[in-house]
Amino acid sequence: MKYKAPLALQKLADAFVKLPGVGPKTAQRNALHLMQYDRGAALKLSEALAEALESLKNCKNCNTFCEDNICELCVDATRDRSKLCIVESPSDLLALEQSQAFNGLYFVLLGKISPIDGVGPKELKFENLMARLSDDLVTEVILATNFTPEGQATAYAIELLLEEQDSLKKKKVSRLARGVPHGAELEFTDLGTIAQAVRERKTG
Amino acid sequence: MKYKAPLALQKLADAFVKLPGVGPKTAQRNALHLMQYDRGAALKLSEALAEALESLKNCKNCNTFCEDNICELCVDATRDRSKLCIVESPSDLLALEQSQAFNGLYFVLLGKISPIDGVGPKELKFENLMARLSDDLVTEVILATNFTPEGQATAYAIELLLEEQDSLKKKKVSRLARGVPHGAELEFTDLGTIAQAVRERKTG
Repeated sequence: MKYKAPLALQKLADAFVKLPGVGPKTAQRNALHLMQYDRGAALKLSEALAEALESLKNCKNCNTFCEDNICELCVDATRDRSKLCIVESPSDLLALEQSQAFNGLYFVLLGKISPIDGVGPKELKFENLMARLSDDLVTEVILATNFTPEGQATAYAIELLLEEQDSLKKKKVSRLARGVPHGAELEFTDLGTIAQAVRERKTG
Repeated sequence: MKYKAPLALQKLADAFVKLPGVGPKTAQRNALHLMQYDRGAALKLSEALAEALESLKNCKNCNTFCEDNICELCVDATRDRSKLCIVESPSDLLALEQSQAFNGLYFVLLGKISPIDGVGPKELKFENLMARLSDDLVTEVILATNFTPEGQATAYAIELLLEEQDSLKKKKVSRLARGVPHGAELEFTDLGTIAQAVRERKTG
């Protein structure tokens, strides 16, 4: 008879497999580690998950995660309401905030155009984005979708929408600079990035 | 004012940091992934953790995880009760079981001698091990602690204990073979392993 680990342990490992980049081995290790060495951490994780599920909603204005109807950023009077930065996900918003380089507001798409997954402009609910863009306070739209094929397609689709609509045409549209990353040595930088940096070189 | 992610999200990320090998970046990624794409998996993980905390105990006989007082292995009548394999943790037991090469019983130490962490024979509760070893059915003791300094020290301490006690002296003591791992090419095998394999080479 083949021995099987206790059911509760198997179930726990199976639940860990759903985390990004976690396979069966790491999942089992997580489960065993918590049960053997850190039951306090297991309890905290269980409670934190339940609490997050209960309290985390999407901001009605920008879609990022928040615990109220409108997020801290959208109600912050010190932010520049003339700039709207469009990102794919709350994690992109967090990364931009951590850089402390942007003081405007955001709109989180909660996705990207990805034909292979059946996600087009309709699934992404561009109507919500359009409604947000119709805010006259917004004079500059910054496209900060990822520099991936899907992210680029998403940015392109948004640009088209902005051009089509007369009321939105006068808004300035920009996107994040692309080129050699901070701290990189050219020798070890991939060729696509170098080519991009050459094409978009700046004078002065 | 610096923006901070919602408290529930931060708490969730902080809870994930306690997993082995997970830093703040991966923890945040886990939290965002579950909240954005897979709330069902988050619920399952929360429940699996609570259930495991509630139902997983240590077997009164061998210390491995089980949901009853005595584990499935210890009550299994088809196992060879004359062989007792001593391992450090339930994950080691699982690995040995998955190899399907051993049909005896186990004793899980739930730790290893590690002077740097203040763990000596006393903290490891060798009395429980001694009580288990006094079972006359057990004629062979297999030391299967890890091939690390701590694991080796633990095996050595157990060997000493077995030698000291007259009633235990007659038991056969063995340990796992050490040498070149399955599928390895000598060219890419570390020198310590090759040296070990040469020293412990077998004839015939």
